[in-house]
Amino acid sequence: MNYPEESLKRHREWRGKLSITPKMEIRSREDLSLAYTPGVAQPCLEIQAHPELSYELTGRWNTVAVVTDGTAVLGLGDIGPEAGMPVMEGKCVLFKAFGGVDAIPLCVGSKDVDDIVNTVALLQGSFGGVNLEDISAPRCFEVERRLQARCSIPIFHDDQHGTAIVVAAAVENALKVTGKKLSEIRAVFSGAGAAGTAIFKLLWSMGLRHAVLCDIKGIVYPGRPDLESDPYLRELAEMTRPSVTQGGLAAALAGADLFVGVSAPNLVTPEMVRSMASEPILFPMANPTPEIMPDLARAAGAAVVGTGRSDFANQINNVLAFPGVFRGALDARASRINEEMKLAAAHALAGLVGDKLSRDYILPLAFDPAVCPAVAAAVAQAARDTGVARA
Amino acid sequence: MNYPEESLKRHREWRGKLSITPKMEIRSREDLSLAYTPGVAQPCLEIQAHPELSYELTGRWNTVAVVTDGTAVLGLGDIGPEAGMPVMEGKCVLFKAFGGVDAIPLCVGSKDVDDIVNTVALLQGSFGGVNLEDISAPRCFEVERRLQARCSIPIFHDDQHGTAIVVAAAVENALKVTGKKLSEIRAVFSGAGAAGTAIFKLLWSMGLRHAVLCDIKGIVYPGRPDLESDPYLRELAEMTRPSVTQGGLAAALAGADLFVGVSAPNLVTPEMVRSMASEPILFPMANPTPEIMPDLARAAGAAVVGTGRSDFANQINNVLAFPGVFRGALDARASRINEEMKLAAAHALAGLVGDKLSRDYILPLAFDPAVCPAVAAAVAQAARDTGVARA
Repeated sequence: MNYPEESLKRHREWRGKLSITPKMEIRSREDLSLAYTPGVAQPCLEIQAHPELSYELTGRWNTVAVVTDGTAVLGLGDIGPEAGMPVMEGKCVLFKAFGGVDAIPLCVGSKDVDDIVNTVALLQGSFGGVNLEDISAPRCFEVERRLQARCSIPIFHDDQHGTAIVVAAAVENALKVTGKKLSEIRAVFSGAGAAGTAIFKLLWSMGLRHAVLCDIKGIVYPGRPDLESDPYLRELAEMTRPSVTQGGLAAALAGADLFVGVSAPNLVTPEMVRSMASEPILFPMANPTPEIMPDLARAAGAAVVGTGRSDFANQINNVLAFPGVFRGALDARASRINEEMKLAAAHALAGLVGDKLSRDYILPLAFDPAVCPAVAAAVAQAARDTGVARA
Repeated sequence: MNYPEESLKRHREWRGKLSITPKMEIRSREDLSLAYTPGVAQPCLEIQAHPELSYELTGRWNTVAVVTDGTAVLGLGDIGPEAGMPVMEGKCVLFKAFGGVDAIPLCVGSKDVDDIVNTVALLQGSFGGVNLEDISAPRCFEVERRLQARCSIPIFHDDQHGTAIVVAAAVENALKVTGKKLSEIRAVFSGAGAAGTAIFKLLWSMGLRHAVLCDIKGIVYPGRPDLESDPYLRELAEMTRPSVTQGGLAAALAGADLFVGVSAPNLVTPEMVRSMASEPILFPMANPTPEIMPDLARAAGAAVVGTGRSDFANQINNVLAFPGVFRGALDARASRINEEMKLAAAHALAGLVGDKLSRDYILPLAFDPAVCPAVAAAVAQAARDTGVARA
């Protein structure tokens, strides 16, 4: 199928992918008096007296805002808020289809961090959570951090944490397949933007201790001149303290057990794979063309390969995580989505593979109906265990 | 029925009155590729190249934000954004039920005009229009004015203009019934807040020339000491320049043809009605108890009486206006809702009564299915005639 052409045709027919539908019929004055005036005054007064009742008397318990500024949409870059809308609507479709979550697309017409933070923070009373989407790094880090400080609802940048959760699950199972331990392996990350940073940090919190991050300028190490003006990269350099600092990706990969790529096409050669440790694991996730094609990587000795693509085995697909993560956070009425909840989500995802675990099956399939409930239950439980649940 | 209790029970069952529903099923990778990645990139790129295509490839053409700060909700006063949500959801239900409009409730957690204006203006790319709701006067005037200056989509404060349109229609037909002319009658307004101001201004633009406005301090006249700090009231005083300035509502009503009340219960006595001109018209719309009860007014000689209540004849109900006004504005892809569009809406509403016009039937009924299409067609035509239509 010619996806660009066919998708455009469908979008012209749909004219928006979401419909806002009343849950009740309004056919009589009585209907009107119950759903609207004068009856509606009573739930208003109840919420005024007990604001937490907004979770019981309005849709807040099940509503998430999907917010972008249009600066990092798909691989398209900064295309602006209006042009980001088809993706946000699509995300909202997936929220409902996979997680039963009512999601509302909102595009902020400003790239200013203050503007984005203020807009979202001022609307938090209307929502049970906020999914940040396609906001470029490093602004996305500050937007998320400041919103988390100002809001009493979960703020979750899916490009960071959704991706990190799925990769963490994939790594957990790939290590099982290859008989390695996270605390002992050497990992190399290509790409230190939103996704790369989040994946690294989640794996680090799971026990990873030997890692090298590479970006477009090479290995990220303490003292690299350009890091002086970049506190985010500087933090990563300080955490990893790589022993090798020169030679870029090729040097970093020599002897490594795990490659995680969220960067650019064809950066990894078969020679580099052959230079890795035995039974290397590769997740080249650049879209649509990965850092190395799976068949090339396997031919060069890769034990496990996963990409972002649905036409190869082991697809790293965010849809495995975000519907269940928000379903669980909403069910627990969580005030935030903390590290423990993300780890619980990753572990639940990895566990769903069960006995079928193999080199070509390290993650459940996107359309497996067991995924969202399992992730949601694990996330809600972790929220309760860590004291951030309010229901 | 005990509306407060029954409505609360229903709200507990509904847990939110709106559902966000995808227009397509997502059951396969192909579905996913068309509604989301990779297919969705193409509509994004089309909108980036031609931003106006957001009206054809996303739901913007049919989507309205219903925005409040919770400061003037129903008759409940300032109950805050979360507590205003049941009303906003209810409004969204009516938008869909009566006008086919997808409406999204948004409650802004600030009473600061700058905050409200910035929040709404930054989100305009996601919507085809904005319905402001239950924002207290005089902040509502400034919020609306500044948003209209910053936005290229309709900004419409329904408490002002929706009410004004329905009252204007009621006045048009009541004048027909009593054989009077708008340019010749004397009108008295009780209440100079959002609704009172807007009703007065719309009737003024229709030809009213003799009017007296009263507020809680009495007649509004040029030079009244407290007006020095109130530019909004000062403008009304300058427009009306009443010959009587003392004696309040009782003095103002002597000899008047029309009373419009958006103030407080029982302010008008039968004596005052008897002091009015022959065949007086009264619209005492204070909720739930009007400025004078219809039976009392009629017994004192009122020719036509209309209230906000559904249990008396001639209900002045906003639902007659806003669904059609926005339906028409959206259909014409209007950049704003101007005076001509409001007048067209009022005239269309009045015209729907047709041959059945009588003292007890000056407005169509809320559930008459002909109302929204007629208002929408008139509004869209007026938008085209005045050059604010873009489709």
